[in-house]
Amino acid sequence: MNRVFLLLSVFVAAALLAMTGAKPIRIVFFGDSITQAGIKPGGYIDRLKQRLPADQYELVGAGIGGNKVYDLYLRLEDDVLAQKPDVVLVYIGVNDVWHKSSHGTGTDPDKFVKFYEAIIKKLRAANTRIILCTPAVIGEKTDFTNAQDGDLNAYSQLIRDLATRQNLPLCDLRKAFLEYNLKNNPTNKDQGILTTDRVHLNDTGNQFVADQMLPLLTAAK
Amino acid sequence: MNRVFLLLSVFVAAALLAMTGAKPIRIVFFGDSITQAGIKPGGYIDRLKQRLPADQYELVGAGIGGNKVYDLYLRLEDDVLAQKPDVVLVYIGVNDVWHKSSHGTGTDPDKFVKFYEAIIKKLRAANTRIILCTPAVIGEKTDFTNAQDGDLNAYSQLIRDLATRQNLPLCDLRKAFLEYNLKNNPTNKDQGILTTDRVHLNDTGNQFVADQMLPLLTAAK
Amino acid sequence: MNRVFLLLSVFVAAALLAMTGAKPIRIVFFGDSITQAGIKPGGYIDRLKQRLPADQYELVGAGIGGNKVYDLYLRLEDDVLAQKPDVVLVYIGVNDVWHKSSHGTGTDPDKFVKFYEAIIKKLRAANTRIILCTPAVIGEKTDFTNAQDGDLNAYSQLIRDLATRQNLPLCDLRKAFLEYNLKNNPTNKDQGILTTDRVHLNDTGNQFVADQMLPLLTAAK
Amino acid sequence: MNRVFLLLSVFVAAALLAMTGAKPIRIVFFGDSITQAGIKPGGYIDRLKQRLPADQYELVGAGIGGNKVYDLYLRLEDDVLAQKPDVVLVYIGVNDVWHKSSHGTGTDPDKFVKFYEAIIKKLRAANTRIILCTPAVIGEKTDFTNAQDGDLNAYSQLIRDLATRQNLPLCDLRKAFLEYNLKNNPTNKDQGILTTDRVHLNDTGNQFVADQMLPLLTAAK
Repeated sequence: MNRVFLLLSVFVAAALLAMTGAKPIRIVFFGDSITQAGIKPGGYIDRLKQRLPADQYELVGAGIGGNKVYDLYLRLEDDVLAQKPDVVLVYIGVNDVWHKSSHGTGTDPDKFVKFYEAIIKKLRAANTRIILCTPAVIGEKTDFTNAQDGDLNAYSQLIRDLATRQNLPLCDLRKAFLEYNLKNNPTNKDQGILTTDRVHLNDTGNQFVADQMLPLLTAAK
Repeated sequence: MNRVFLLLSVFVAAALLAMTGAKPIRIVFFGDSITQAGIKPGGYIDRLKQRLPADQYELVGAGIGGNKVYDLYLRLEDDVLAQKPDVVLVYIGVNDVWHKSSHGTGTDPDKFVKFYEAIIKKLRAANTRIILCTPAVIGEKTDFTNAQDGDLNAYSQLIRDLATRQNLPLCDLRKAFLEYNLKNNPTNKDQGILTTDRVHLNDTGNQFVADQMLPLLTAAK
Repeated sequence: MNRVFLLLSVFVAAALLAMTGAKPIRIVFFGDSITQAGIKPGGYIDRLKQRLPADQYELVGAGIGGNKVYDLYLRLEDDVLAQKPDVVLVYIGVNDVWHKSSHGTGTDPDKFVKFYEAIIKKLRAANTRIILCTPAVIGEKTDFTNAQDGDLNAYSQLIRDLATRQNLPLCDLRKAFLEYNLKNNPTNKDQGILTTDRVHLNDTGNQFVADQMLPLLTAAK
Repeated sequence: MNRVFLLLSVFVAAALLAMTGAKPIRIVFFGDSITQAGIKPGGYIDRLKQRLPADQYELVGAGIGGNKVYDLYLRLEDDVLAQKPDVVLVYIGVNDVWHKSSHGTGTDPDKFVKFYEAIIKKLRAANTRIILCTPAVIGEKTDFTNAQDGDLNAYSQLIRDLATRQNLPLCDLRKAFLEYNLKNNPTNKDQGILTTDRVHLNDTGNQFVADQMLPLLTAAK
């Protein structure tokens, strides 16, 4: 009798453990206005929620408009680590490049890397898995005449190098957007293919970003 | 006999305590290239060392060229808190303004305040006394035609407001430099009065800054 | 008979003289969006029209939004000289300063003077009287913290020096606006005193500019 | 007698023809510091002089450091038309792009076209043949990460469109430099392939530019 009870107890414990194991992984999307818009209905985070079972994935938005890499660093504890995330997807860089010419307050490339590394270091210290993204576009022209193309390529390369050096998965949106536009923007439009305004995502853009991120999120599980 | 011994013990203890009390207070100068140059012979930190008894004051330089407020925030733990300072004198802001036009990588005023507050918060948490400084000059012309005059005034005012709100002592170098130049720069020179190059201090400038800081440092003891 | 003829001759001559005398002097206002808005009802050019007899003064607007000094030079023949003006009032400089930080396409101070001198040279060659104006404001704060205050002061000084060197009348709007604001902007507002948006004139501003220009226009007759 | 006279006439005519034919065509190189350096020994204009017979080609440098398109327009009469050139080669655009970020005083694309068209109009009115050049490089990296790549491509495209619209020969240095670097800069260097400093030409660069221009100059004869 005692043995049977013991066996039963083991089974129940295992079942409970399994249920505990079913606790969804928490993924925080950490970024700027693009991320901030991503949680709205039809946004890419919203679309990912449709695709990923809620009992397995909890997706949390942590995007604030106008953020640059050092803004992420400043609010890392409060807005990300406090949520005890399993995975953090960092999507930053557009404003670091763009605000150079629009406000005179962009980010120098060496500082960009320094702050990005500091973010990664803190996330690693908290045992968080990390996914990096390259900044997609500022302007969708396909003849390489968007004013920030060179700089966006440079900062994207800095992020790719970081991913390699730190052995982190990369969602290379810059590359994916360029390839998509080369195929789907034959008339060299400035916007309206994947963005509404050269930077922020339209419906197609949100779906496209969700598609790019999906395999990295399932792989992160 | 016992009484004499007791009395003697008290004296010895008091003497030891006095010696302990003689441990100098450690003051860290936290800033950019102006601070970095301040520790050189003839620099204002070097000049302050001549004026303040070494057994009472230990002055430590923590300036790095090109630093803006967020750079200070990034290296606060390693370069300042690790030294267990009693007092930290924060002298930042020139590059936050200047790099807007020279590199497109200055600091937005709201972010300037945000990072400055974050620095103060961490220093307070470490029980460190704090002295704020306003950024002195970018150009010494006295007819208010230095290109960054307006912006430097604005950021200086942000720092003054911070000092008031946070009840912190302020070394108002911006104000002091303007007053000095109005008296001593009758021919409206761009540089050469207190600076060598519109920004960095010449001998007179180093002495002048030392003179401005001295009463605040002795008061901080 | 002879007497009658003589009398008639005198009458005819007087009539001709009157007709000649009645020809109004033509004043062209040459500038940017501030001038462009000046011809609208309630604008300063419109207000000046109310004050100056139409049989003596013909006021013509030649302002185009976004113009800098070199844009004026480019369209000087077509838009100004073609009108055979007696007087040209040049009001330029705001965009030369402002577009440095907003678009990266401002005007270097030495080039500003060079193009301004080239404009004056061509106007003089066409026997046109010239009135110069200093650029009034980009922001109306009175504590000297408008970001472009230093640069606006510098470019205004360049124009004052030009007026002195070339012996030309000057409408010093920069000086007049500062004085007005120091008296009438006690709460250090950024806009709303003489401007609607830190740059363009509200009703009070249009009246104020008309008041500043009026004595120079009547003196030019 | 008649025969002798005829023979003499033929000789005289031939001599006159020879004299007329011997008058070299005058080619003015109109541009910025790159053109200014081109007339130095080893510069591309100097190299072209070695290649083109002096009795047939007179090459004149008219480059001034820091020039943008509107500076060329300002000094067109004095520095170019006064020389009564047969051909003018216009090589401008680097500073129009570069000074946006370095000085805040670049040139807006619409203004760039406007001034370029005004230059062409005046040159055409003087019956001058015109050759356009695209601005070569600001940085020689081949992975499209030079910060101004996008903008340089955009301004080069504006010039290509101008050449097409106005039916003018084009020396497409931008295209030629990119192709050369893709082949000859395998390690993605920033400078040192065709330039000494990312912008100005080294020996190879001067020879390369001379090679690109040569066929257009001989065709212009």
